[in-house]
Amino acid sequence: MKINVGIYGASGYAGLELIKILESHPQMDVIHAASNSFAGESYRGVRFIPVESLNPATVDLVFLCTPHGASAPLAEQALDAGARAVDLSADLRLKTTEQYTQWYHAEHPAPHLLPTEYGLPEFNRDNIKNQDCIANPGCYPTTTLLGLLPLAQAEGIRAGAALVVDAKSGVSGAGRKPKLGTHFVEVFGDFKPYNIGRVHRHVGEIEQELKAVNPTLGSLIFSPHLLPIDRGLLATCYVPLVDGWTLDTVRQCLEDTYKDEPLITVLQDGQTATIKDVARTYGAVLSVHPATDDTVIVVSALDNLLKGASSQAIQNANLMFNLPETMGLL
Amino acid sequence: MKINVGIYGASGYAGLELIKILESHPQMDVIHAASNSFAGESYRGVRFIPVESLNPATVDLVFLCTPHGASAPLAEQALDAGARAVDLSADLRLKTTEQYTQWYHAEHPAPHLLPTEYGLPEFNRDNIKNQDCIANPGCYPTTTLLGLLPLAQAEGIRAGAALVVDAKSGVSGAGRKPKLGTHFVEVFGDFKPYNIGRVHRHVGEIEQELKAVNPTLGSLIFSPHLLPIDRGLLATCYVPLVDGWTLDTVRQCLEDTYKDEPLITVLQDGQTATIKDVARTYGAVLSVHPATDDTVIVVSALDNLLKGASSQAIQNANLMFNLPETMGLL
Amino acid sequence: MKINVGIYGASGYAGLELIKILESHPQMDVIHAASNSFAGESYRGVRFIPVESLNPATVDLVFLCTPHGASAPLAEQALDAGARAVDLSADLRLKTTEQYTQWYHAEHPAPHLLPTEYGLPEFNRDNIKNQDCIANPGCYPTTTLLGLLPLAQAEGIRAGAALVVDAKSGVSGAGRKPKLGTHFVEVFGDFKPYNIGRVHRHVGEIEQELKAVNPTLGSLIFSPHLLPIDRGLLATCYVPLVDGWTLDTVRQCLEDTYKDEPLITVLQDGQTATIKDVARTYGAVLSVHPATDDTVIVVSALDNLLKGASSQAIQNANLMFNLPETMGLL
Amino acid sequence: MKINVGIYGASGYAGLELIKILESHPQMDVIHAASNSFAGESYRGVRFIPVESLNPATVDLVFLCTPHGASAPLAEQALDAGARAVDLSADLRLKTTEQYTQWYHAEHPAPHLLPTEYGLPEFNRDNIKNQDCIANPGCYPTTTLLGLLPLAQAEGIRAGAALVVDAKSGVSGAGRKPKLGTHFVEVFGDFKPYNIGRVHRHVGEIEQELKAVNPTLGSLIFSPHLLPIDRGLLATCYVPLVDGWTLDTVRQCLEDTYKDEPLITVLQDGQTATIKDVARTYGAVLSVHPATDDTVIVVSALDNLLKGASSQAIQNANLMFNLPETMGLL
Repeated sequence: MKINVGIYGASGYAGLELIKILESHPQMDVIHAASNSFAGESYRGVRFIPVESLNPATVDLVFLCTPHGASAPLAEQALDAGARAVDLSADLRLKTTEQYTQWYHAEHPAPHLLPTEYGLPEFNRDNIKNQDCIANPGCYPTTTLLGLLPLAQAEGIRAGAALVVDAKSGVSGAGRKPKLGTHFVEVFGDFKPYNIGRVHRHVGEIEQELKAVNPTLGSLIFSPHLLPIDRGLLATCYVPLVDGWTLDTVRQCLEDTYKDEPLITVLQDGQTATIKDVARTYGAVLSVHPATDDTVIVVSALDNLLKGASSQAIQNANLMFNLPETMGLL
Repeated sequence: MKINVGIYGASGYAGLELIKILESHPQMDVIHAASNSFAGESYRGVRFIPVESLNPATVDLVFLCTPHGASAPLAEQALDAGARAVDLSADLRLKTTEQYTQWYHAEHPAPHLLPTEYGLPEFNRDNIKNQDCIANPGCYPTTTLLGLLPLAQAEGIRAGAALVVDAKSGVSGAGRKPKLGTHFVEVFGDFKPYNIGRVHRHVGEIEQELKAVNPTLGSLIFSPHLLPIDRGLLATCYVPLVDGWTLDTVRQCLEDTYKDEPLITVLQDGQTATIKDVARTYGAVLSVHPATDDTVIVVSALDNLLKGASSQAIQNANLMFNLPETMGLL
Repeated sequence: MKINVGIYGASGYAGLELIKILESHPQMDVIHAASNSFAGESYRGVRFIPVESLNPATVDLVFLCTPHGASAPLAEQALDAGARAVDLSADLRLKTTEQYTQWYHAEHPAPHLLPTEYGLPEFNRDNIKNQDCIANPGCYPTTTLLGLLPLAQAEGIRAGAALVVDAKSGVSGAGRKPKLGTHFVEVFGDFKPYNIGRVHRHVGEIEQELKAVNPTLGSLIFSPHLLPIDRGLLATCYVPLVDGWTLDTVRQCLEDTYKDEPLITVLQDGQTATIKDVARTYGAVLSVHPATDDTVIVVSALDNLLKGASSQAIQNANLMFNLPETMGLL
Repeated sequence: MKINVGIYGASGYAGLELIKILESHPQMDVIHAASNSFAGESYRGVRFIPVESLNPATVDLVFLCTPHGASAPLAEQALDAGARAVDLSADLRLKTTEQYTQWYHAEHPAPHLLPTEYGLPEFNRDNIKNQDCIANPGCYPTTTLLGLLPLAQAEGIRAGAALVVDAKSGVSGAGRKPKLGTHFVEVFGDFKPYNIGRVHRHVGEIEQELKAVNPTLGSLIFSPHLLPIDRGLLATCYVPLVDGWTLDTVRQCLEDTYKDEPLITVLQDGQTATIKDVARTYGAVLSVHPATDDTVIVVSALDNLLKGASSQAIQNANLMFNLPETMGLL
């Protein structure tokens, strides 16, 4: 008996990737894919239906690729109907309604779902297993946390010191809805920072997860930039170290953390993570570089639509149904 | 006394280029730039106003960068108010309302303006001079006609034979309005034919001009393709020759036609026109290549926003006001 | 017992793709990968060795991703050592030494290997089976022949009429060796025709295969263009029809030809083949479009490194060893 | 009497830009352009000659677009012959031979030319005037210094605190010589850090200039990245402030510094510098953004080939000959 899957927001880039990945998943079948704007059209043999036509009682699991604000109510409805839910939006990532309102400037649409387990399997897989509902992390948070969370846990990051994360994302991170800012002619040949400093919504999510393991950490300074490529995300993280930590300690910490992780690669000394290493893959790649005596640079890269969204959602779904975490991915 | 200029549709790519070119035009000043979608915003010091706020009685000349259907009524209104008009849309390019309806599937919005002089200065400058209203040619027609019109005039093209023009355009040719088909992620890494055969609207315009000088010509087969670059247009034209014509005759014909044209370059034997030759320039570049005994290839390239739209509109405006044709361009 | 594979020229783009595809081939193992320029470096766990270190007696099959001129002698050496060979270069594609000299301006390096079976499996699989040596077709020829060969076989193409094929290829078609013409800065934002008319070497190969099935065909006019993307190849083919043939006959002919071919897709009426349809896939996509009463347009697209090179080489190798043709590909 | 100009290394990207800019310079004429690799070829009507054919005694001024190591000896030779020199290489930027050897791992090729005045006109124009020889700044240093030098001079940067500069450059910054790292196929779709931390050669140059005006500054952490575009450079600078300084102080300081500078634009609050603002322009654009209480972000962008190389060289040359600094540029 396969797991019957429904996808809301299926015609967005994350939804399309889910359809593609699940084609070869041995235990999951996409039986419904909802998209109001593409209803009636098809992708790889899957026909889009209107959102209201997707009855969650007919599926075992829904993936929510809908915008924040719209996702949590759909999660609620799915859970009520007896299905499980992986929410790829931001609705369930922050632990409290106060945080949600602070970063998303709106009332939380389904407060009683909070807190939801955070779906970063490499750090939280025991709590994800058998859950009914998971908050799939954002693309920037996944990239940043894979680089910094091991160091924060091991208390290698200098207390109180600002953490600078300079991040660059391909345009698919901005979604599939046409806007002037994602018009080919506007982006071609350009490169630009946006929402830099502490204004991007992912700041709250990244800080929440980092401070959960080490409350002494200083403020995150987070600068996203729009790269003129379709996909891929790379974060250059400037890490102030506690006394006694060095480049080698950092590398050792990352290597120890990820030595049994099939999807995370820590590059050897002298190698540098790049977008080409990760585009169209389910994994993340990290590299470590010396800066000054008390600062190292960690570069973290992944595909924003895969490990930064859809393939990570599959990892979570596998865990929720007690399947091997990388089923359908390796 | 400078010529006061108003631009309708000023926030589109052609409008923006006009603003930029006219900055350094010694005899023209943009005093009004209308754009409903960008009203209140500015470009290079020019502030966009709503279309209804642009009173044509306050200007000497309007450039219409508005869509077909909307342009001709604005031209009419401008002429009534005593201003002159260069229409960059397709509204006034076809000589009859029947042709317009055939290709644009709508009633002509201002029939009594037809026929309007066709603003291809290299072939029609005597008739453009001192006119009140000019139809600025399309980007594909300009590219194609610069390559084929001299040969058609000289009766070098084989009567009745199909003329294949395989054309490729940068994305700005599709306009600035965001659509899925011009979303960066959709276009990046792609290349695609569209409206190929005899369905693109420019087929009517190109055939009209070619057959005006040589009614014996065969059908045009015209295949536009979308190039994943921001600007530039290149047409590869397969020209069946009459008996007695050869590669050398073709080259000589083009060289003779353009020898005194400052904006048109015929490359030497062995050179090939490319987009890089013409992007961000006001000119067109042609090259000639052998194919078979009775067929040569003419490659024609220009910047779709400049010689294919805005700088050609300036050539026309200069002629209409009896100024040197390339004023502000050279 | 797996088939032991050696790759010559393994660090070029075709070689790298072979390594990647063969990773998951159930019956083939890459045990040696030779590259003088990258000897000592690795790709996906495969270490490059110098060419002279690859002893063909130690493998069952070699793929030759070496340049023309260098490939045939290596094929000869492999055959002498008891291995089989798939030559991805042009050395063995033309049937006679005269043709080779005409198009490659050199003496043929291994005349007694001619003629070799041409490795276009969709048309020649019966003759490829159990062969020791196969000539893998060029990327442009594969694209063109998939579109035109069915029509030539069915005698749908007008005798003696020129066949215009306007083709566009991503930059990887030019190889991995750095040259000014493939420098990022030179290609970015550009688009250019090269070797157009009847001078590109693939003209000989395409005509040979077309005329083998229909000697009445006219001359090929073939115009390759360099697309500013990494991979993908699209050919727009202008097909003059015999009396009685129409768009529907052409579509039917292609659909009949490919109805059981897992790697070839004929799009429905109204759809158009694009590079995005085929990039990073093992298949080809065809679409058919009306032009004039006696001419139709066939668009053919594939990935130049896969169906245009490496995955087609795997199809051939599978046939040579009597394995299912798409093993490792589907 | 015009100034006769010779260019060494004229076929590189900086050299080509010099030829283009000087076409319309009212007081300078390029009479010789030397390039061994392109000798005999032409660019915009200028014919390249071999380096040894450029006799510096025949010109008034040479621009050295040659690699470091080769440039200083040519500067020396030009000065000996009575010509003046603007060196666009790194040979004369560092003040001492020790620094040169530290960063370039070679003996300085012309020690007695040190120290040379540093050609950042906005900060050093009084000392550049009437000089015979000027060291034209690097592209990364120009970008970074335009953003940070005013703050360092005004003592607004916290003493001893690390300065993080995360910089991104178009591929032309890597030169025109074909290499695998600049091959179109390798760069397309990629984005990568290189020489990050404190290993890029420009670290020494930037620190030299910053510490010259404020020796209390901490270490520079400098991370260049390769952008998949042809031109443009953007640096995201994280600036730790002294007590009492705020976002407003920083903005005021930059606005005061540049209020009369025609080539430097400080954007208003809420605007962000981007590559599109500066590509193909002679200017630089700066924007200021809040981060934390004691850190602001300064974004600085320019065209690496123009303000980052060739047009800045023209500013310097104008000053050397007592011409208006922006002659030929505005």
